[in-house]
Amino acid sequence: AGSTEVDRAEAEEFLRMFHAENPVAGPVEPRIDAVMREIDATGTYWHTPEELAFGARAAWRNNARCIGRLYWRSLQVRDLRTVSDAAGVADHCFEHLGAAFNGGKLRPMISVFAPDTPTRRAPRIWNEQLIRYAGYEQPDGSVLGDPRYCAFTREMMLRGWRPPLPRGAFDVLPLVVETSEEGPQMFPLPHDKVQEVQLEHPELAWFADLGMRWHAVPVISNSQLVIGGVSYPAAPFNGWYMGTEIGARNFGDGDRYDLVPVVAERMGLDTTDEASLWRDRALVEINRAVLHSFRTSGVSITDHHTESSRFLTHLEREERAGRRCPTDWSWIVPPMSGSQTPVFHRYYDTEDQRPNFVTDDGATRRALQGGPPAFG
Amino acid sequence: AGSTEVDRAEAEEFLRMFHAENPVAGPVEPRIDAVMREIDATGTYWHTPEELAFGARAAWRNNARCIGRLYWRSLQVRDLRTVSDAAGVADHCFEHLGAAFNGGKLRPMISVFAPDTPTRRAPRIWNEQLIRYAGYEQPDGSVLGDPRYCAFTREMMLRGWRPPLPRGAFDVLPLVVETSEEGPQMFPLPHDKVQEVQLEHPELAWFADLGMRWHAVPVISNSQLVIGGVSYPAAPFNGWYMGTEIGARNFGDGDRYDLVPVVAERMGLDTTDEASLWRDRALVEINRAVLHSFRTSGVSITDHHTESSRFLTHLEREERAGRRCPTDWSWIVPPMSGSQTPVFHRYYDTEDQRPNFVTDDGATRRALQGGPPAFG
Ligand code: HEM
Ligand code: HEM
Repeated sequence: AGSTEVDRAEAEEFLRMFHAENPVAGPVEPRIDAVMREIDATGTYWHTPEELAFGARAAWRNNARCIGRLYWRSLQVRDLRTVSDAAGVADHCFEHLGAAFNGGKLRPMISVFAPDTPTRRAPRIWNEQLIRYAGYEQPDGSVLGDPRYCAFTREMMLRGWRPPLPRGAFDVLPLVVETSEEGPQMFPLPHDKVQEVQLEHPELAWFADLGMRWHAVPVISNSQLVIGGVSYPAAPFNGWYMGTEIGARNFGDGDRYDLVPVVAERMGLDTTDEASLWRDRALVEINRAVLHSFRTSGVSITDHHTESSRFLTHLEREERAGRRCPTDWSWIVPPMSGSQTPVFHRYYDTEDQRPNFVTDDGATRRALQGGPPAFG
Repeated sequence: AGSTEVDRAEAEEFLRMFHAENPVAGPVEPRIDAVMREIDATGTYWHTPEELAFGARAAWRNNARCIGRLYWRSLQVRDLRTVSDAAGVADHCFEHLGAAFNGGKLRPMISVFAPDTPTRRAPRIWNEQLIRYAGYEQPDGSVLGDPRYCAFTREMMLRGWRPPLPRGAFDVLPLVVETSEEGPQMFPLPHDKVQEVQLEHPELAWFADLGMRWHAVPVISNSQLVIGGVSYPAAPFNGWYMGTEIGARNFGDGDRYDLVPVVAERMGLDTTDEASLWRDRALVEINRAVLHSFRTSGVSITDHHTESSRFLTHLEREERAGRRCPTDWSWIVPPMSGSQTPVFHRYYDTEDQRPNFVTDDGATRRALQGGPPAFG
């Protein structure tokens, strides 16, 4: 029950790209020959450490949804391709959290575990990010915690996970690593690896009483890294947060923590009249609290204005380098004050490029529904 | 120097659609036969008043960029197809402004002037909207008025337009109507047709001192209405404003009135630190001022939250009617607080449909550059 053979054209295209951008690697032809022979023999091939590191960076550079690509060269790549057992993957994920946090000065980082091969399926991490908060449906229909993960949380409890007592709005879910041999395995996150920031507002003293907090390091863990035809389904990566991801989406969305009506109420706004723009005003204050709290806690974070103009710098550099930069407007334009950011006011190349990160339906289902398992 | 023959397939498709949606019009076959004979004889055909009215409404309904489509059936259609001289077009445009304003209770309305035919080119209105404000480049490089129309303004002055003295930030540009016989002709707008709202803020008293105002009725005048293969290049239409069009874009964009830094300064915000979200805060207050001022002046306006949820109602109705609703996410999601509106959180049909409004490059150039003329 392995995956199919590596696509030779994709392998060759990647090798040509790697050698073209990295002259120090020498002529590409011998390497292509060797890789083709390796695919003949095994159905796949093993990237050199340099190819792997470049491939991961190029995948970031090519991801049309990411506004943070200016620093793509700085990605730290942890080569963990020999790790393929559930406990090993989990342990290295926890190490990743610590190394990426780096005392608050976050480091963009990726941990690449064993690839899919024709003879052996790679491990899968179920969680959407290494750190995610449980969502508990309450008897009255409301949700304690993150509603996005209600189904996942329920499934984890069926699998034997015991939530902390008393349950809270920020209970860290266990990490689930599945291998074809072991099936899905749960691993609680070590407390010292879960760095969090308590939220307070620079002016509104009552904001701290809401008891909101968020984790410092966003490590996306259910995307597949695809390089030259080889798939790395377990390749968790992180940058640092852009404030709106937390303040506008995680806290602001009606089907997440839904904090806008709560904050508007505390601010004394007229929530009976949409034209008072109470939603907009509360949204801004929530986002100010996020940026302020991360900053005073000494944890890297960026605001959407700064990151937008950095992204335009990135586009210029890519253009000067003669490369296209695939960009998805609807993901790049921030979820608040869109037209106040320079990324709003232009068109982009949209054609997909490889290497890249891709998320398939099965991975999304496991991350949100907590199953079914990848390996029957 | 006429346009080419009407596309028969497009004509037939439209007639089938009209008859399918309007059973009272009777069987379609006789009408198709008649239209085909008319195209044989003249290269074009004349819509019945009912076809014209339905076609204009369907064009609105099909426009992927418009969030205001819930009320598409209510569009008032002024059949002015026999009007094709510059002065006649201008006069009826001024009448349109008065009828659409309707004492503040705005009426969605379209005035359809003579179509393009193989023997006679239709009149063209150069202006992007009937009411637009001049932009004057100042010796110090700054702009008085609307920078979007600097080139258009310059061109009008070369053509003999005399700005009012002293020049102001809200000088209404002349209307330019071009016909193939007369060339471009300028018509000053009658004062009583230019209804405006002075801006004040519900709480910030100094806001009124900024001297900002905006016109009440947005009449887009350089889009072509295309129905069943027939083009109506002069077919100005209006709804009412959604506040963000004025508050976020016209006042907020850096290359328009660029009010955000000015308001942030008056609010005493820390404009040296992007993370203070001074742009976002000032933007919200400008938009509150817009909604508040229109409302207290008794002029129809809508906010982006209300209009977003109306649009979802429209989508449901269209779905129930078995129709696709072409929708462009990047135009429908408002330019501020995007993710706070329900339209942000879904996908849409994107395939174009006819009838529709289309804007060609020549029309855009005339609206922004003030030329070159459509008819050499
Ligand atoms: C360095 C700081 C970084 C910032 C500020 C940043 C910012 C963002 C933002 C705001 C999004 C949209 C998230 C959403 O709306 O859900 C995003 C998406 C994404 N980023 Fe980045 N990013 C950073 C680093 C990275 C790194 C290191 C990688 C990979 C090596 C990466 C790969 C991606 C991918 C694949 C997505 C799309 C995720 C999806 O499809 O859900 N980013 N990024
Ligand atoms: C009734 C109230 C209406 C509202 C609130 C409304 C709202 C809007 C908004 C917010 C936009 C985007 C404008 C921009 O970002 O530049 C838009 C675009 C558009 N609307 Fe509507 N609209 C209304 C009525 C109408 C009517 C009556 C028509 C035509 C009969 C129409 C046709 C269009 C078209 C063609 C566009 C695209 C304009 C372009 O391409 O620049 N709308 N509308």
